[in-house]
Amino acid sequence: MSDHDNTTLHDRVTAEVPPELDVTDVQYEGPDLVIYTNTPREFAKDGDILSTLARTLRKRVTIRPAPGTQSSPSEAEAKIHEIVPDDAGIQNLDFHSTVGEVLIEAKKPGLVIGSYGQTLREITQAIGWNAEVIRTPPIESSTVENVRNFLTQERDERREFLERVGEQIHGEPTKDVDWVRVTTLGCCREVGRASFLIHTPNTKILVDCGDKPGAEGEVPYLHVPEAAPLNSIDAVVLTHAHLDHSALLPLLFKYGYDGPIYTTEPTRDLMGLLTLDYLSVASKEGRTPPYSSEQVRKAIKRTIPVKYGDVTDIAPDIKLTMHNAGHILGSAVSHFHVGNGFYNIVFSGDIHYEPTRLFNGAVNDFPRAEAMIMESTYGRRNDYQTDTDESEQRVHEIINETYEQDGTTVIPAFAVGRSQELMLVLEEAMREGDIPTMPIYLDGMIREATAIHTAYPEYLRDGLRQRILHEDENPFLADQFQQVDGGQEMREEIASDDPSIILSTSGMVTGGPIMSWLELLGPDADNTLLFVGYQAEGTLGRRIESGRTEVSLNGRGNADRLTLACRIESVSGFSGHADRAGLEEFVGEMNPRPETILCVHGDDQATDQLSSALYQKYNVRTYQPKNLETFRFP
Amino acid sequence: MSDHDNTTLHDRVTAEVPPELDVTDVQYEGPDLVIYTNTPREFAKDGDILSTLARTLRKRVTIRPAPGTQSSPSEAEAKIHEIVPDDAGIQNLDFHSTVGEVLIEAKKPGLVIGSYGQTLREITQAIGWNAEVIRTPPIESSTVENVRNFLTQERDERREFLERVGEQIHGEPTKDVDWVRVTTLGCCREVGRASFLIHTPNTKILVDCGDKPGAEGEVPYLHVPEAAPLNSIDAVVLTHAHLDHSALLPLLFKYGYDGPIYTTEPTRDLMGLLTLDYLSVASKEGRTPPYSSEQVRKAIKRTIPVKYGDVTDIAPDIKLTMHNAGHILGSAVSHFHVGNGFYNIVFSGDIHYEPTRLFNGAVNDFPRAEAMIMESTYGRRNDYQTDTDESEQRVHEIINETYEQDGTTVIPAFAVGRSQELMLVLEEAMREGDIPTMPIYLDGMIREATAIHTAYPEYLRDGLRQRILHEDENPFLADQFQQVDGGQEMREEIASDDPSIILSTSGMVTGGPIMSWLELLGPDADNTLLFVGYQAEGTLGRRIESGRTEVSLNGRGNADRLTLACRIESVSGFSGHADRAGLEEFVGEMNPRPETILCVHGDDQATDQLSSALYQKYNVRTYQPKNLETFRFP
Repeated sequence: MSDHDNTTLHDRVTAEVPPELDVTDVQYEGPDLVIYTNTPREFAKDGDILSTLARTLRKRVTIRPAPGTQSSPSEAEAKIHEIVPDDAGIQNLDFHSTVGEVLIEAKKPGLVIGSYGQTLREITQAIGWNAEVIRTPPIESSTVENVRNFLTQERDERREFLERVGEQIHGEPTKDVDWVRVTTLGCCREVGRASFLIHTPNTKILVDCGDKPGAEGEVPYLHVPEAAPLNSIDAVVLTHAHLDHSALLPLLFKYGYDGPIYTTEPTRDLMGLLTLDYLSVASKEGRTPPYSSEQVRKAIKRTIPVKYGDVTDIAPDIKLTMHNAGHILGSAVSHFHVGNGFYNIVFSGDIHYEPTRLFNGAVNDFPRAEAMIMESTYGRRNDYQTDTDESEQRVHEIINETYEQDGTTVIPAFAVGRSQELMLVLEEAMREGDIPTMPIYLDGMIREATAIHTAYPEYLRDGLRQRILHEDENPFLADQFQQVDGGQEMREEIASDDPSIILSTSGMVTGGPIMSWLELLGPDADNTLLFVGYQAEGTLGRRIESGRTEVSLNGRGNADRLTLACRIESVSGFSGHADRAGLEEFVGEMNPRPETILCVHGDDQATDQLSSALYQKYNVRTYQPKNLETFRFP
Repeated sequence: MSDHDNTTLHDRVTAEVPPELDVTDVQYEGPDLVIYTNTPREFAKDGDILSTLARTLRKRVTIRPAPGTQSSPSEAEAKIHEIVPDDAGIQNLDFHSTVGEVLIEAKKPGLVIGSYGQTLREITQAIGWNAEVIRTPPIESSTVENVRNFLTQERDERREFLERVGEQIHGEPTKDVDWVRVTTLGCCREVGRASFLIHTPNTKILVDCGDKPGAEGEVPYLHVPEAAPLNSIDAVVLTHAHLDHSALLPLLFKYGYDGPIYTTEPTRDLMGLLTLDYLSVASKEGRTPPYSSEQVRKAIKRTIPVKYGDVTDIAPDIKLTMHNAGHILGSAVSHFHVGNGFYNIVFSGDIHYEPTRLFNGAVNDFPRAEAMIMESTYGRRNDYQTDTDESEQRVHEIINETYEQDGTTVIPAFAVGRSQELMLVLEEAMREGDIPTMPIYLDGMIREATAIHTAYPEYLRDGLRQRILHEDENPFLADQFQQVDGGQEMREEIASDDPSIILSTSGMVTGGPIMSWLELLGPDADNTLLFVGYQAEGTLGRRIESGRTEVSLNGRGNADRLTLACRIESVSGFSGHADRAGLEEFVGEMNPRPETILCVHGDDQATDQLSSALYQKYNVRTYQPKNLETFRFP
């Protein structure tokens, strides 16, 4: 940023601030405008000044005390304990003098914040440090802890990075924005390898970068000239953490990308968890992982978190706003405002439109949205799911019947999302006596993923959030949940033991511990294999679901080939995806409705039938893109 | 090319050649396979060997005598004069010892060639030199002469260039061809700045690179990542010489492109003529030309001519075949065969489907053609042209009426195409007494463009070709045609003289001498301004045609603004473009019919209405692309 720009910005900020408040410096850090002041205590008095400034300057604004204006850490620590009620359960205080900030980790962050931020402001007034609060997860999560420690340790490098990004974002766009284009790099007429490029005359944004379940090697078309070289990309946006959207994000850093990733905090942590697991599965299966954990750390270090509803500048000519998508923890419908009122594009990401046990329904309300790139997983004419009550009853029946013949029910599930939904269903069913109480074993990353859910309860549905924050009501802490942490030996014991329920990854039977469970329990007619989620074309899950009982386990265990004798069942209604009705309603109830919709993230039939239906029903211009096409808007 | 490849190729060629023929070396020059032999006289005996080899090897094949096997030039010259009848009118012999070739320039090349190439073979047998024939244009053309001299002078550099291109073309494609894409860099929902990119995993081909008449500055989107950097483009194909397809080709060489341009010989020469004129118009109007004549020469030097019907390798995975398009001299419907049987794309370029006085109708017969990018100039529902007889009668009437009131008829026309058509119409009308004989003045590049037509009579319609080759029947040599070569003074004289007819460029009244004619003759109600060609949106021609009489001449002459009092008439039916019926028939009579058609090169309504009509009538998938979009096939 030139001195000139800086002066202008300083002047603009000073003009907006009451005269008794002193502005010593103004700087960009990533999308945020940071205001340094000698009078942090004065700033803290006025609860509205921050939001007023943000509105006027149309930026995310942070106030920081200028160096030398704060109390000493020991004084400050005493003061904080004085102000915050003991009930808050403060676990840790972390003073960062370079940014004048103290991180307060507490079990009940609400009590540190106070109503309307009253307590936080009181702290800042008293000590001159900016107070930020983070929650101690009710279930210990090594992922959340590792990410937090890592980011603390990398704080200085990260600050430099944020300043670099800040300059880039807040520069003037050099060219008029008279077009915006979307190029499909994957995920068209298929489920998997989600990856899209938004380009304007000034900017390139990559949305998602996933793998394709069941089709290793079919990766997004990143080498085409629109995307290559990768360092020509200005920013990456991640809609949610599932591997078909996130798996190849770290790869970008291997091939020269060094810019930001914008996503929600839980998505960042889940992405770390799932990509590390992706690497370990690959190496267990004897494949060469496409990148190393080093690049996963890089991806985490380069992530700039955004909260639902916050308008964030991510380029000189693009503003991003993420909204709840109802699909998994942290999943986001991502709204891009291009140019100064020029055009608006929504990426639905994966959505669930009705509320579920875990999440509120997907947001479909935007100031403007002319085009939408929309998922179509269940876009076929007959893709209606049974309603939740019915689905749950059916699950009860299947488990009861299996239990009665002394069998075990194995449920393949994504570690993130469907597992937690099922855990809530099963916990309630046992509590209410709908199924007998028996052990529910969690295999793979499910327990850890659950812990991450409890670290971000503000992303969950209201009632569930309350229950999680009260230890004795936290459904995820129920006794019957047991982690499979003893490897193959423990699995063999469980398999030969009394009936139980097993939730195991991967959700589409493409690898991971579910392969061992197939081998151990599949040949026995007393057991049941129960599918509760979408099985993509090309996956073993899909093949089994459509009647194949001769399966290949791909060199796992002793038996390469296996004949399944167990009962095979599918129950819909637990999907993290909207069904056909939900997809139609998502569009039908949008206001204003987009002019153009691209139907992606669904097989040939699903995208074809959904795009026809939306066109006929709502008279929207719809397309069923292929990979490698470019659409220009408007 | 590696030694290994060379050996293999040498072996393959030797295997196909009868044992008495000696093959000393085999090399690629551009798309051609050049076979060197110590026994050129033996090769020449067998009239079929060349075509047999071409068919077997699927290459364009040239035979060259190995150095030291030929007669001396003086011996050879005597021999040639002995063999060729005097009637042939040999003008010049040019011996190129590096390639063992003698260029014979003759007034009647047919007599040098002999029936089925008999005489040519006889020459080669006698002298050991490869004989090539070129025609002395019946009307002297400085363009044709300059281009020939320039290419002769650059022969050595050109040979190196051809070897470089040859290696590139005949290398193995490194990636499987599992997609081919077309990106629209211009000419969508508009007429002008034609430019399209064909890409495969291995190759980028640019088709056309024109300007937009009436909208200077609206150039093709060459800076987008699909096309940039320009040296990532492997080859350029030019469908015809009009500036809206060719004007910015030389610019490519300014910005780093150094590869081949594939087009017909007449298009090469006309492109040279028109782009040099484009530069001179720009500098006369005080604009900075985007490139210099140096780059025009470069473009000519890099042109590899193709003949109608010849299958030419232009990349490891793309073969080009050009066919008559009926639009202007050398214009080509361009067929791209992608991969080994993978896909076929036709670019119609500008077409006229019915035969005209000048040309046969556009070719629409291909072995396979799955997709077509098609012009839509007259694609609107009501864009039917009156038939030629009626149109000609109407022109006679208008000229007669103007003549009777002592007025002059001014016809703005493209130098290339419409002018020659009109010349034929007017010459016949005067010969048959339909209009009085009076001077027909040709202003701008029209005379020179006409001369180029006579240099390539094989590109004209049969009857016309015969007439041109007999001096006393050559319609373009009629006495009434007079070149305006005395500048503004001569124009003032003509304007104040007896009634006449004036054919003047530019065809859409966007600059050039027509501006002077408007100024001199426009204010007088006795004169007529007669439009016979398409006037694109944004041009002065379109504004006048739609009734505007107050026009600005843009600083030309004394009067900046001018009120037209002359009669304004438009007669359709002379267009070089198919009308709506012709466009429909072009598609309807294609066999096989393409699955997908992109309607381009027409305004919003024309492309919309044509694409709807083709879809409804022929059940073809049609699109009305925007600029900057990418379509993937299949």
